[in-house]
Amino acid sequence: MFTAALLALTAATQSQPPLKVMPMPSTVEPGTGQLVIDRSFSVAATGFHDASLDRGIQRFVAQLSRQTGIPFRSKAAAASPTLLILADHGRESVQKLGEDESYELTITGSGAQLTAPNPLGILHGLESFLQLVEPSANGFTVPAVTIKDQPRFPWRGLLVDVSRHFIPLDVLKRNLDAMAAVKMNVLHWHLSDDQGFRVESRRFPKLQEMGSEGHYYTQTEVRDFVAYAHDRGIRVLPEFDIPGHSRSWFLGYPGLASGPGPYTLEGGGADPAMDPTLDSTYKLLEKFIAEMAKLFPDAYFHIGGDEVDGKQWEANPKIQAFLHAHSMKNNQDLQAYFNQRLQKILAKHHKIMVGWDEILHPDLPKNIVVQSWRGQQSLVTAAQQGYSGLLSHGYYLDLMWPAAQHYAVDPLSDSAATLNPEENSRILGGEACMWAEWVSPENIDSRIWPRNAAVAERLWSPQNIKDVDSMYTRLAALSLRLEWSGLTHRSARTEMLRRMAGTEDVAALRVLADALEPVKGYARANGKQPIDFHAPLNRMVDAAYPESDAARHFRDLVQAYLQGGSTDRAAEAHIRATLIAWRDNDAALRPLLEQSFLLHELTPLSENLSALGDAGLQALDYLDRPELSPESWRAHQLTRTEQAKTPKADLVLMVVAPIQQLIAASGPK
Amino acid sequence: MFTAALLALTAATQSQPPLKVMPMPSTVEPGTGQLVIDRSFSVAATGFHDASLDRGIQRFVAQLSRQTGIPFRSKAAAASPTLLILADHGRESVQKLGEDESYELTITGSGAQLTAPNPLGILHGLESFLQLVEPSANGFTVPAVTIKDQPRFPWRGLLVDVSRHFIPLDVLKRNLDAMAAVKMNVLHWHLSDDQGFRVESRRFPKLQEMGSEGHYYTQTEVRDFVAYAHDRGIRVLPEFDIPGHSRSWFLGYPGLASGPGPYTLEGGGADPAMDPTLDSTYKLLEKFIAEMAKLFPDAYFHIGGDEVDGKQWEANPKIQAFLHAHSMKNNQDLQAYFNQRLQKILAKHHKIMVGWDEILHPDLPKNIVVQSWRGQQSLVTAAQQGYSGLLSHGYYLDLMWPAAQHYAVDPLSDSAATLNPEENSRILGGEACMWAEWVSPENIDSRIWPRNAAVAERLWSPQNIKDVDSMYTRLAALSLRLEWSGLTHRSARTEMLRRMAGTEDVAALRVLADALEPVKGYARANGKQPIDFHAPLNRMVDAAYPESDAARHFRDLVQAYLQGGSTDRAAEAHIRATLIAWRDNDAALRPLLEQSFLLHELTPLSENLSALGDAGLQALDYLDRPELSPESWRAHQLTRTEQAKTPKADLVLMVVAPIQQLIAASGPK
Repeated sequence: MFTAALLALTAATQSQPPLKVMPMPSTVEPGTGQLVIDRSFSVAATGFHDASLDRGIQRFVAQLSRQTGIPFRSKAAAASPTLLILADHGRESVQKLGEDESYELTITGSGAQLTAPNPLGILHGLESFLQLVEPSANGFTVPAVTIKDQPRFPWRGLLVDVSRHFIPLDVLKRNLDAMAAVKMNVLHWHLSDDQGFRVESRRFPKLQEMGSEGHYYTQTEVRDFVAYAHDRGIRVLPEFDIPGHSRSWFLGYPGLASGPGPYTLEGGGADPAMDPTLDSTYKLLEKFIAEMAKLFPDAYFHIGGDEVDGKQWEANPKIQAFLHAHSMKNNQDLQAYFNQRLQKILAKHHKIMVGWDEILHPDLPKNIVVQSWRGQQSLVTAAQQGYSGLLSHGYYLDLMWPAAQHYAVDPLSDSAATLNPEENSRILGGEACMWAEWVSPENIDSRIWPRNAAVAERLWSPQNIKDVDSMYTRLAALSLRLEWSGLTHRSARTEMLRRMAGTEDVAALRVLADALEPVKGYARANGKQPIDFHAPLNRMVDAAYPESDAARHFRDLVQAYLQGGSTDRAAEAHIRATLIAWRDNDAALRPLLEQSFLLHELTPLSENLSALGDAGLQALDYLDRPELSPESWRAHQLTRTEQAKTPKADLVLMVVAPIQQLIAASGPK
Repeated sequence: MFTAALLALTAATQSQPPLKVMPMPSTVEPGTGQLVIDRSFSVAATGFHDASLDRGIQRFVAQLSRQTGIPFRSKAAAASPTLLILADHGRESVQKLGEDESYELTITGSGAQLTAPNPLGILHGLESFLQLVEPSANGFTVPAVTIKDQPRFPWRGLLVDVSRHFIPLDVLKRNLDAMAAVKMNVLHWHLSDDQGFRVESRRFPKLQEMGSEGHYYTQTEVRDFVAYAHDRGIRVLPEFDIPGHSRSWFLGYPGLASGPGPYTLEGGGADPAMDPTLDSTYKLLEKFIAEMAKLFPDAYFHIGGDEVDGKQWEANPKIQAFLHAHSMKNNQDLQAYFNQRLQKILAKHHKIMVGWDEILHPDLPKNIVVQSWRGQQSLVTAAQQGYSGLLSHGYYLDLMWPAAQHYAVDPLSDSAATLNPEENSRILGGEACMWAEWVSPENIDSRIWPRNAAVAERLWSPQNIKDVDSMYTRLAALSLRLEWSGLTHRSARTEMLRRMAGTEDVAALRVLADALEPVKGYARANGKQPIDFHAPLNRMVDAAYPESDAARHFRDLVQAYLQGGSTDRAAEAHIRATLIAWRDNDAALRPLLEQSFLLHELTPLSENLSALGDAGLQALDYLDRPELSPESWRAHQLTRTEQAKTPKADLVLMVVAPIQQLIAASGPK
């Protein structure tokens, strides 16, 4: 009710919405009229096409069918199809970084044409076309328009950590579909970490047998997944994180470790690391990399390299002796030595090394790629030193930031703004990162989407596309569309609320959930080390959207109302209705909170929401009167509401600030 | 809002709810306390088990994990598992009619035990267990209870027509899962009809190549599907509907037909039928049946046999000559001749013939099974003549009846009540039927579920289990649970409303949808023959639930309020809130109705709902006053509301009657 009313208002206060395409294309020229999509719709590829492009076109027709409910029948190639597709030539059999992804889409009232140098552009253009389809008074239509489009950065990725929590392939595949919808082109597969080794090695089967609790991908599955991604214009970048973050290796191969063990996936104690001083380590790694280099066709290979705390190295006298014998100053030098040897192995197997920003070291050749997670500066430093780089700092989806915060991060802004064009060209793009400390197959979609689309737009669209309101408008439309492609980023919350509520009605629970977001950053881990990776992820913090549209709309509404001098009666009525719903919600919800052990912890949040509603209503009443609110009342209410900012149950109420604004506004200007 | 408030009220007015198991078990003895399901939960089968039962137990654990969000880890067989499973012996490799399906489930505060003669009972008991799991103040728990359970009828089926609209296997599989959840044990697969031939024949490939538009199941897929069903305790009964309903055969094999053709799947004109006078017909059928008899292991084989209108036979002089030469009186005799020859072919291939009630003819042997679709009487007649029978009359889900109407139909009531025990035993059970004139992969779940569970309970539970309120309470709980097993019977409506509304908010559209149901019976076909089977099924009639819980709750609420002498203030407040929402909804919805071509047709329904809200509010105001409403006002309002009963856009407003009751109640008693 709350969301509905606010959404309706938002829609009503808008004039012509922008073209609801995300990421926004490079250039858009509106035309006149619209093309009707009905049962007669047909599509034909008259230029280059192969089996992969044909499958892409079939997926497009199937998706158009899902969106419209029209069961398009396969037709003999039409002489004048509704949509004519023309690719000039084929694409690389292994997708290359920097392959031309441009396309041109022209839609008139009588037909559409999509041209591109190669099928990658065609795939992107088809996604743009799908986003343009809307029901109108005349049927399903797409507006007449000419789009010329190409990406700003050639590397636009999403990292998915499948080690901390295993994510099955069907979930990953629907995420590939969604990535394709927003024109992302790299799936960075974080396949091993302390908590799990997730791919079958035939050379070293104890890796998955002892390091995965049975949750790993077979090589057959990997090949199928890579082919699935390739069909969608997505490269698959494997990451095996070494020499740190590698405890899962040591269950099967303890000889790799720098310390004596024994090792368990649960861990505890010092962070183990591989022993970089032993030739046997490199022998195993070479055989392993030889195997994986064949399994993963991409030219790049990610070796992790982050967060080596060096404690195991320091505790091992042999390693210390090695360090001194080789005149190394510190653990960084030792890791650089490891990386140099590793890089040679990778080069032998025709792979370009990628690693986290800790690997940056002058001893490494310039053709490696540095992925910056600790800050933008390391990206700049790398580019200045002649290294290629990727930005992930600012794109960590697990931090539960709002989309706008990620959207504001640009690989070429801040310190990067001083780079010269040649240095600029070394910044290949970036990757959103879905680290999986608190992610399950059930809720991962909602942790990635729709916010990941804001990162996708930042990496695809021109730098000057940065209007936040436009982004949120298009993000909302995209979010609805993404459910058609099988994502559960919206629907899973309902199911999770139902789980907590049993067979009771969840309406009042939803009102509370709409005002909540998970705590930001790493606050969830505070005082809870080590993390229990087998804990059920079935609490409200796991169900709540990382960014509540409802709370954001309420904040915007209050701000607009106050900026307009508190004179907009319709806005006030909406605000009042919401506040009444909150005030009354705790009483309605309380029996359910008492009934379910999963909901107990929400009691203070529910009380606080009611108190906020009450305080806001009192403030509104003062705003309606000519006199100011008493100072003592304001002081009391500001204190009362301030304590509602304290996170409870790893959740934070996102509507305290607008209530405090209402309270403050009832006093002197 | 409307639904939520009513559901909350319904829950509040209830005291101890019955055990939320559906179908209700034969005997239930409540115990004391409850068993907690937490991370330590374990299950072990110590009696007979095989790979199929092991898979069943794995599915149970996976489903329990979905329901609770607890990631149960595979453990070494626990010495004292939380749930101990004990099957006495194995089941038949091809599931037999009448195999023992009984089980006994004992749950105490410290553990649970499930015993059964064979794995079929274990599978049923596991489903009962899953339905008992609820979140409580102490964690997820199941109540202490002893259940002894067995089915009333051995044949509890669901027919799915995949000819009129092709239904992909993933959709059918999730329906098998749901059937298993309600202990149904026969999937009757209506594989051929005029509009499509849906299975691969290697002997006669033109059947699927020319008769399916590319939408058919390969033999590999069929084998996989049959195995999937077997794992879930479900037999697969294939139906090839002959000699009528067989146009799809004639595209590839026109020599089978009684008329000259040419034939298309779209059809039109007389209903074609096979020529029963030609030996070539039987030669082809024998080879075909030989092939299908191997593909489908079930002992039974359904040959359709319904609705042979005989027009093609009458128009064919050779057939008429044959009829006279063999001293046949009419087309029925000719069909009986066909069936006799067919039955001999089936017997040769070790199959028992099943057919629709038209096949009942004294010339056929007693071991055939007659499926009654035209009325209960044919079932009785068959039983009296020594034939076995199945009831489907009264269980046609495509008629859009409320669950209670199906629930009231009992295979052994009405005219069957006069049968003696031996005749009774010939009534094997029944089948719900999902005919697919207006069904798509997208909405079929919502056409079958949850109403099918009412039929499942009728066929499983003791005859005296017939309390409608209890049924609806348990059906509501089951309906929520079924979404955990992958059905989309609830969620698909939201997606379909979104399609109609584009990216606009659907809250007001949902208010209207909640008051609507599709027209009943075959009214949708009125004046629209022949049906266009390629038409998009994307209108509100395709999205609206066959039975609106919200409308039913409102009717119940008004009835209870009026029966209580209009004194219940809380009930009145709920009724008033709903009526206000309806009255105001049209204004909110109108812009959207004008914006989307799919919603235009709902305009009169939206107007009528507002008018009903307005009339109801006036009536409530009169009920609040001591004086009666004026007779002229009542007459006017009854006329005004009466016209709202007229279906529009193949939809009917389900809330006219309670408004008229309010109007009438405001007058003299």
